Amino acid sequence: MSFEENVRKVIPYVPGEQPNRPNMIKLNTNECPYPPSPRVEEALQNLDADRMRLYPDPTASELVNALAARYQVNPDQVFVGVGSDDVLAMSFLTFFNSEKPVLFPDITYSFYDVWADLFRIPYQTCPLREDFTICGEDYLRPNGGIVIPNPNAPTGLLEPVDNLECIIAANPDSVVIIDEAYVDFDGESVLPLVDQYENLLVVQTFSKSRAMAGARIGFAIGQPKLIAYLNDVKFSFNSYTMSHVSLAAGKAAVEDETYFQEITARIVRTRERAKEELRTLGFSFPDSKANFIFATHERMGAKEIFDRLRERDIYVRYFNKPRIDDYLRITVGTDEQMEALFAALREILL
Amino acid sequence: MSFEENVRKVIPYVPGEQPNRPNMIKLNTNECPYPPSPRVEEALQNLDADRMRLYPDPTASELVNALAARYQVNPDQVFVGVGSDDVLAMSFLTFFNSEKPVLFPDITYSFYDVWADLFRIPYQTCPLREDFTICGEDYLRPNGGIVIPNPNAPTGLLEPVDNLECIIAANPDSVVIIDEAYVDFDGESVLPLVDQYENLLVVQTFSKSRAMAGARIGFAIGQPKLIAYLNDVKFSFNSYTMSHVSLAAGKAAVEDETYFQEITARIVRTRERAKEELRTLGFSFPDSKANFIFATHERMGAKEIFDRLRERDIYVRYFNKPRIDDYLRITVGTDEQMEALFAALREILL
Repeated sequence: MSFEENVRKVIPYVPGEQPNRPNMIKLNTNECPYPPSPRVEEALQNLDADRMRLYPDPTASELVNALAARYQVNPDQVFVGVGSDDVLAMSFLTFFNSEKPVLFPDITYSFYDVWADLFRIPYQTCPLREDFTICGEDYLRPNGGIVIPNPNAPTGLLEPVDNLECIIAANPDSVVIIDEAYVDFDGESVLPLVDQYENLLVVQTFSKSRAMAGARIGFAIGQPKLIAYLNDVKFSFNSYTMSHVSLAAGKAAVEDETYFQEITARIVRTRERAKEELRTLGFSFPDSKANFIFATHERMGAKEIFDRLRERDIYVRYFNKPRIDDYLRITVGTDEQMEALFAALREILL
Repeated sequence: MSFEENVRKVIPYVPGEQPNRPNMIKLNTNECPYPPSPRVEEALQNLDADRMRLYPDPTASELVNALAARYQVNPDQVFVGVGSDDVLAMSFLTFFNSEKPVLFPDITYSFYDVWADLFRIPYQTCPLREDFTICGEDYLRPNGGIVIPNPNAPTGLLEPVDNLECIIAANPDSVVIIDEAYVDFDGESVLPLVDQYENLLVVQTFSKSRAMAGARIGFAIGQPKLIAYLNDVKFSFNSYTMSHVSLAAGKAAVEDETYFQEITARIVRTRERAKEELRTLGFSFPDSKANFIFATHERMGAKEIFDRLRERDIYVRYFNKPRIDDYLRITVGTDEQMEALFAALREILL
């Protein structure tokens, strides 16, 4: 016998590679190609290093209040964490404690099953239809919770709010998490349903539409009761997850609505142009409402295209998984980056 | 039935209050009274806001390498997290999965039982002796893990390394965590034992001796096998816990050894002077090796002194708990802050 018998052994999530090469084109982890709001830079410049010696506000009220104002909810409806991964992990730990399985799509964010395994939560995946849309009836069976990303990743498909509402309404005994990491690129949020459904938790992130993946900020919005449960667990894990810097930078970002609208609109425009170009090159894809396109080619295998792009220092994401192993997830970059991608694809494919 | 039946209900840790009043004297959460190293300020000033759009290095190598160099271990022996609370929470989740109880002192950091409850880990507390020292034999019974803070909090007592080594050596089948949050104030670390004992994990923090409570950085050092298990769980929880800012600021702090030695020595000098003064005022206390003094008064109750200090905008910590409800935990501040405290105590007591 050894201490190793008591170790929680897991198969961890493998994040997308984070290469750091000069001139590389990085379209593999759905980061924003534009910098954060200039107000974030200002907030960083104005940081008082001396305050660093003090613990931050454990209630993160500076950031919570800014988010509450932006999304027109009360501060007691907002929970913040170290990226939406932290928020989702805490939510799994808080809400998914049934013997019945938690349900989520078979093709989805690859962290859901990792969290379920970590916390020993039973789960079942619900197969997406052939066209990658969600089959709502799958979520009507007994369950211990539901998590659905909308738009879904890595497909990019947006499920209409009505369909999600059916699922939420049909499951009053389960917390239903809608993971809206990618909702800001012309998607429609379920946030307006929060007041109506006490079992609904909406999770969003600063990593994509607010260009702050490196700042590690995510948040959840729900009714006060859900948020209080979540905070109880959070305060049982780590009282101070958000540094002074996260709080100040996050607040600055939320308050610059104009910049947010501008960069998300720009990404949407680039995405729509990219769809045309990719179609011309022989790709097909679900109609993405996210900041990436999930594309398969009519002739050449995805893995081969992935490798050949990589040789050219262009990084996209390839998942070697059932049903999606002939797809590439291509993050929408700047127009210039996309032109470089198309030029490379032309070389590779034509 | 309702979703609430599946909520993980916990009694969360209540952090010390974080008042923010002009001219207050804050001696209640063991923060450092001096600012972080000037190199930290420099690192903050030099931050490239544009990099914020990219995910940080998930392996945190910049900070891990700096810590490895400072503590003369290999990078694969270092784990970093969002404060030592995050590191400890992950360690509980990773290593304490036995049906046998985890052991820790009855008077200790009040988060240990909170984590145990959160993760449903059975535990037993081992009573400290009357003089607050640890009774080593208590840790020789069958257990699922051990966690001991050294110096202990809130007593401030340092247990000799030899005593801890007996416990570590006697428990090869358990991971033994030595929580050294307060070791840098003239304490002796068990770090030199790490190469010898594969079941030893040493946890430290930037919150006290490096004056960076607001930056949220903690770390663990152990043999590569332990660190790998810990990283697996961490990567199953949140791939990117450390922001760009934490990595850069943490590295800058670790690299300024001179400043670190200077401020910790200054706090030790102030502490030793404070002991004399408190004794004169009728207090007694275990001989602290931490950045706080855990004191009881010969006449006046601790709660009363606490309240009267508070009226004067001087904040210390009072724990309404068995065995220690007549003690105050007083953080060692600057000499000026301590003089103000003594003046107030003279008014209150004499």
